[in-house]
Amino acid sequence: MIAEILCVGTEILLGDIVNTNAAYIAKELAALGINVYHQTVVGDNPDRLKSCLEAAFSRSDIVVMTGGLGPTYDDLTKETVGAYFGRNMIMDENCLTTLKSFFTKTGRPMTDNNLKQAQMPEGAIVLHNPNGTAPGCVVEGNGKTAILMPGPPREMVPMFDGPVREYLSQFSDGMLVSRNVNIFGAGESMVEDRLKDLMVHSTNPTVAPYAKQSELTLRVTARAKTKEEGYRLIGPAVNRIMEEFGDNVYGLDAISLQNAAVELLARKGLRVATAESCTGGLVSSRLTEIPGASQVFDCGVCAYADEIKIKVLGVSPETIKNYGAVSRETALEMAKGVRKLSGADIGVSTTGIAGPGGASEDKPVGLVFVAVSGPDGEDVRELRLSRGRGDDRENIRYASSSHALNMVIRAVKKL
Amino acid sequence: MIAEILCVGTEILLGDIVNTNAAYIAKELAALGINVYHQTVVGDNPDRLKSCLEAAFSRSDIVVMTGGLGPTYDDLTKETVGAYFGRNMIMDENCLTTLKSFFTKTGRPMTDNNLKQAQMPEGAIVLHNPNGTAPGCVVEGNGKTAILMPGPPREMVPMFDGPVREYLSQFSDGMLVSRNVNIFGAGESMVEDRLKDLMVHSTNPTVAPYAKQSELTLRVTARAKTKEEGYRLIGPAVNRIMEEFGDNVYGLDAISLQNAAVELLARKGLRVATAESCTGGLVSSRLTEIPGASQVFDCGVCAYADEIKIKVLGVSPETIKNYGAVSRETALEMAKGVRKLSGADIGVSTTGIAGPGGASEDKPVGLVFVAVSGPDGEDVRELRLSRGRGDDRENIRYASSSHALNMVIRAVKKL
Repeated sequence: MIAEILCVGTEILLGDIVNTNAAYIAKELAALGINVYHQTVVGDNPDRLKSCLEAAFSRSDIVVMTGGLGPTYDDLTKETVGAYFGRNMIMDENCLTTLKSFFTKTGRPMTDNNLKQAQMPEGAIVLHNPNGTAPGCVVEGNGKTAILMPGPPREMVPMFDGPVREYLSQFSDGMLVSRNVNIFGAGESMVEDRLKDLMVHSTNPTVAPYAKQSELTLRVTARAKTKEEGYRLIGPAVNRIMEEFGDNVYGLDAISLQNAAVELLARKGLRVATAESCTGGLVSSRLTEIPGASQVFDCGVCAYADEIKIKVLGVSPETIKNYGAVSRETALEMAKGVRKLSGADIGVSTTGIAGPGGASEDKPVGLVFVAVSGPDGEDVRELRLSRGRGDDRENIRYASSSHALNMVIRAVKKL
Repeated sequence: MIAEILCVGTEILLGDIVNTNAAYIAKELAALGINVYHQTVVGDNPDRLKSCLEAAFSRSDIVVMTGGLGPTYDDLTKETVGAYFGRNMIMDENCLTTLKSFFTKTGRPMTDNNLKQAQMPEGAIVLHNPNGTAPGCVVEGNGKTAILMPGPPREMVPMFDGPVREYLSQFSDGMLVSRNVNIFGAGESMVEDRLKDLMVHSTNPTVAPYAKQSELTLRVTARAKTKEEGYRLIGPAVNRIMEEFGDNVYGLDAISLQNAAVELLARKGLRVATAESCTGGLVSSRLTEIPGASQVFDCGVCAYADEIKIKVLGVSPETIKNYGAVSRETALEMAKGVRKLSGADIGVSTTGIAGPGGASEDKPVGLVFVAVSGPDGEDVRELRLSRGRGDDRENIRYASSSHALNMVIRAVKKL
């Protein structure tokens, strides 16, 4: 079964809005096991829309469309699809009732052009829209199917998640069940290399990598009759990944490092404090992004200047003089210092050269030290994060903050 | 002149990433006065790419493409375009030198498949890529033009902004000259309302709004024969916007609030320190994102817990007891406290309810106080930032940090 996505709207065509609908639908179709080979965007122009529709049906069985269902004269998706299938437009009495009651409820006058929204190609399956005035529809004929949904994502997404996914499930062979193994500190190519058999040759379940900044998620997906069967199929692959990358696995179905860290700290009733130099507050900012962070986090110090490292965090001036602010020794004293200052169970610190300035011969851009201090002692890591590119500073800061969060997770796991 | 956008990449097709490239290019082509009627996405499949390219050239003069320029076997955009124009692929010696030096510089071994990135269709104009290993190119023939750029936005955007826009300007009637007026604290609809004449009726220059989170940029664009003429045409519109929104204008051609803040502080030789509760380090993180932030920033304290506000920032326990941690009074003492602790010229603070938890009858989610303290005294603002949506926490934190940066800018402007 081949589907494609056809989004109608001049505002997408001119770049006034980003086409998040296409990405959403594409991901959902992939999850249903329906192949997608093309996405197209066309403006509110009936001739061009007609050509695009014909091209789409010449190569696909299903065309999933968004946009052009509104009340104005240039909203022509339903009419164009109706014409393609040779159907008349007829007034749908249910839609009309719903539409009228919407206007009554909101106290707004219903202008005549709104009536258009209750018209449907003859024989269409109506998709009700609880979040707006434009219903969607499914039109079938000659082995082809058009699915029409409104353009605004807050109307389209619930419609897809409800009746559209249900409709499409007839084309999906069983259900798809997924688990995500979250990995940090192992690059995509290394993972592919060590899991080649699983990733290339395995068909049920499949294993696919999703890299996002310095984190990597391996999604294991099985096609099965039931959820239980799906989990049974997934199990061995997940175990294999855990065995191979155990030390690098920070979560199962976790959303992000910060999510995993906050959850783990909360579960163990522990608190963390941050002492940041090169990350400048990024670690504490990522932690406090998570609702409920106040359960596990009280205090962060962003000590950009040496005097602040000394005065607020209690780093010894000799340490900075002898080893420099960017050193293993300073990182350790920062982590210990913020732990003491805050009374937290774990202190974590970062100090490094984010660049582009501040580097020297023996301390290049990208040299970062990350340390943790906890009840069981300390740990510190030296990182080399520069990739020599224009966005180096951003990457170095982000990757450093990820390493810091990952070191917190590792330290907490041991407690 | 008709152009269309053809993005190549399985990761877009499957919805793993959102196609921001298409929106960016569409907007820029519109600004150049080049019409766009179609956007297409196709995977890394040579036959389908070929069909899409043929379809695109059957209806358009220029096809702007992204993606498929990398080193792996499935990167086939250059080869497919070369074949369409009947060109052989030849090794470009300049590209090869650049490529080799990139690998030497980063100390990584250059595998053979990388050589592919230095091959170009015969006669192509090479577009150098300072932000990655894959150069782009322009191929012309029979009145048709293909423009090929790499897929990663941080490589594509600079390439478009540099050589591609320059190349395309030949199809534009005259040159386009733009200035951006950066506005904070005035919504898009209010701005449109007060500048309706300029935004709707003015044709040269045009005035277009670009909203991004809580910031708004008005881009004033003139079509002119020379840069000087362009600036002359732009001048009155910029002045008009400044008059209308003077207090809300934080920069001219500034990249972001944090950029404007760091630049202004550096120019005046002043330093800022941050004391954050609800923003959890986001203000310091945004400041330190900017290269050279260490010139203007030494110290940030993220005081999530009351004890830290008291112990580190010197907020009086009575203030917290009498007014609460989320109050005008606490915000002021935090700003004063961090100014004293750090010795900075300006202290800025945030305290509020980011939600979803922590709210009470009289202190709802979205209530935030932002304060600044400087040599000329203090200022504090009460904000109500909830929009009652699922992404409330993120928005409240980000908007609070933007208000904090904006208050720093306002305070520094007066010094």
